[in-house]
Amino acid sequence: MSIVFETVAWAPRHEGRDLPGAVRILDQTRLPNETEFLLLNTPEEVWDAIRRLAVRGAPAIGIAAAYGLIVGLQDADRDKPVDFLHHLDHLVHYLGTARPTAVNLNWALERMRAAAHELEPGLTVDVLLQHLIQEAHHIREEDLAMSHSIGEHGAELLRAGMGVLTHCNAGGLATSGFGTALAPLYVARERQIHVRVFVDETRPLLQGSRLTAWELQQKGFEVTLLCDSAAGHLMREGKIDMVIVGADRVAANGDVANKIGTYMLALAARSHRIPFFVAMPSSTIDLNAPTGRAIEIEERPAEELTEWNGVVVAPKGVHVCNPAFDITPHQLVTGFITENGVLHAPFALGLKDMVPQAVEREGRELPHEGAFI
Amino acid sequence: MSIVFETVAWAPRHEGRDLPGAVRILDQTRLPNETEFLLLNTPEEVWDAIRRLAVRGAPAIGIAAAYGLIVGLQDADRDKPVDFLHHLDHLVHYLGTARPTAVNLNWALERMRAAAHELEPGLTVDVLLQHLIQEAHHIREEDLAMSHSIGEHGAELLRAGMGVLTHCNAGGLATSGFGTALAPLYVARERQIHVRVFVDETRPLLQGSRLTAWELQQKGFEVTLLCDSAAGHLMREGKIDMVIVGADRVAANGDVANKIGTYMLALAARSHRIPFFVAMPSSTIDLNAPTGRAIEIEERPAEELTEWNGVVVAPKGVHVCNPAFDITPHQLVTGFITENGVLHAPFALGLKDMVPQAVEREGRELPHEGAFI
Repeated sequence: MSIVFETVAWAPRHEGRDLPGAVRILDQTRLPNETEFLLLNTPEEVWDAIRRLAVRGAPAIGIAAAYGLIVGLQDADRDKPVDFLHHLDHLVHYLGTARPTAVNLNWALERMRAAAHELEPGLTVDVLLQHLIQEAHHIREEDLAMSHSIGEHGAELLRAGMGVLTHCNAGGLATSGFGTALAPLYVARERQIHVRVFVDETRPLLQGSRLTAWELQQKGFEVTLLCDSAAGHLMREGKIDMVIVGADRVAANGDVANKIGTYMLALAARSHRIPFFVAMPSSTIDLNAPTGRAIEIEERPAEELTEWNGVVVAPKGVHVCNPAFDITPHQLVTGFITENGVLHAPFALGLKDMVPQAVEREGRELPHEGAFI
Repeated sequence: MSIVFETVAWAPRHEGRDLPGAVRILDQTRLPNETEFLLLNTPEEVWDAIRRLAVRGAPAIGIAAAYGLIVGLQDADRDKPVDFLHHLDHLVHYLGTARPTAVNLNWALERMRAAAHELEPGLTVDVLLQHLIQEAHHIREEDLAMSHSIGEHGAELLRAGMGVLTHCNAGGLATSGFGTALAPLYVARERQIHVRVFVDETRPLLQGSRLTAWELQQKGFEVTLLCDSAAGHLMREGKIDMVIVGADRVAANGDVANKIGTYMLALAARSHRIPFFVAMPSSTIDLNAPTGRAIEIEERPAEELTEWNGVVVAPKGVHVCNPAFDITPHQLVTGFITENGVLHAPFALGLKDMVPQAVEREGRELPHEGAFI
């Protein structure tokens, strides 16, 4: 399957052997000016890369964290498998604190933990490590397969000449390489269905300008960039026919946690009767959160608003409210584009059905029972 | 009457004499880091200062342009009053092209032109100039009086503890010194009514961060800064009780042209049943524009989105849509806070009534008949 960008991958230190290795990421803080890859050699480097958004996007940070576990475990004492599992539990907790909102981060980490604990006792550390690296590879491959399925299903919604607006980056750069919200655009393009894409710049960190516009332009799309606050104006002018965004977490009732600004976009879309779709793999669904109210919203540093490239743009001492995400109530969502198809309202049942199905499809038990009840 | 900041004023070159002089502005491109004043000595410098937003805000650029005319006329040939009037007409047209959307710019320029043409023929250039500088002073003083009246009327709407959200800068820095949208906050504060103020940063030029947050903080307010796209989230959390914005132009039916993002804010406010007020002097009303559709929207340079402080933040060659303003339909406006009181829906009649009243109050005919029919 094609990927758009090698966003996050495992980089073995020796040819022909999977282990030892490092997490290799495309440093998204340097785009669009420099295409530079980073090798992350410690769990701390992985934590830091996730925290400072060098790797970002819910699926991509799940994959980075899964590989991050391996990085932290590969130097474990070969003679103490029990310590190994304790150390793994510790790392799962540690890496899970890098960003609190994205459910995929904990989903991937819990899946890795469950995979290790499920193995029969008495295995050597080397065998445990081999199993875990395979599990991490699976997570990445499944994400890629899911992205392609999302693209296939979403492309059915698109018609030539449509104006499609997206927010933040839910593209190849946010995933294993093919995207969620952008996947339908990639598949449509393969099918010669040409749409015009409008991209919100996405303050404060400009993932729209720096990442989505770059990513789509690299792939030959005609891209128009706008301020987040201009989306309503373009809708009023009739230029937008559909909105597609990604999601960092979807509650059991269909409420969506996604990049700050998604909610205002959904309100504006509703006012203009423009379809508003959320594209995400089923691993984004958190049945533990009955509604959006149960989702913790990450508050990010004030400096993201008060400084720009080292230049101060706001008065000293001003209070800042900088939530990274907001909640879009399910009533504003036209449908969810998932790897299993497009889900229309009412959502609660469809979302619930999707979680066990998605896992069973892979012939595997729930990775961590408690996480999905 | 108090002013908050000396945003724009006339600076005579010699003590005790009004003429010759220059336009003195607080350079708003340098805030919040430097408080620097500029002397503008030619119409070209005035045009450029308006264009690059060194002086901005609909009322302030009207005043700057009125003084800008004097700057361009004061070196006129003393022996040729007819040439003087031709030159004035030329300058009125020239300065009016600096920014197309703000009605006050043309309103002030046409008023200056009318004042000159109304004078009896045969006056010397010196006398004409004296009349015109007085007219420009009047425009500034009337704006200050109107700002105070707007503040008085608007303050009646405020209660202690309220959360008030504003967008862009419609404060002292946008006017002769006391503001429109911020004027009610200043008056409320004088009356010991303390509100919490939330300020949209206002992309792309960050007038909220750089100007409004600075201006309010200078005056002792507790200010919280947010991304434009976070306003809906704060509304959903119940932190916002009222929105007050300014206006660059108000159509005859009450549609409002204001800084890009105002429309999405109004949509979000409506969804949360939060009162949405527009504060402006009656000179902002343009009865020539039956609805918002008739208002030209200024498209500003792509670089405002693609670059920051010389650093490129978007891929080369990306299309950019950068409208400076949007139209908020009158149905979303709770009321207009004007120097004559708070106007509630239906607006068409009240707005129409206000235009001649505002001028008659000053005992003067319409400055330029055609402009108000």
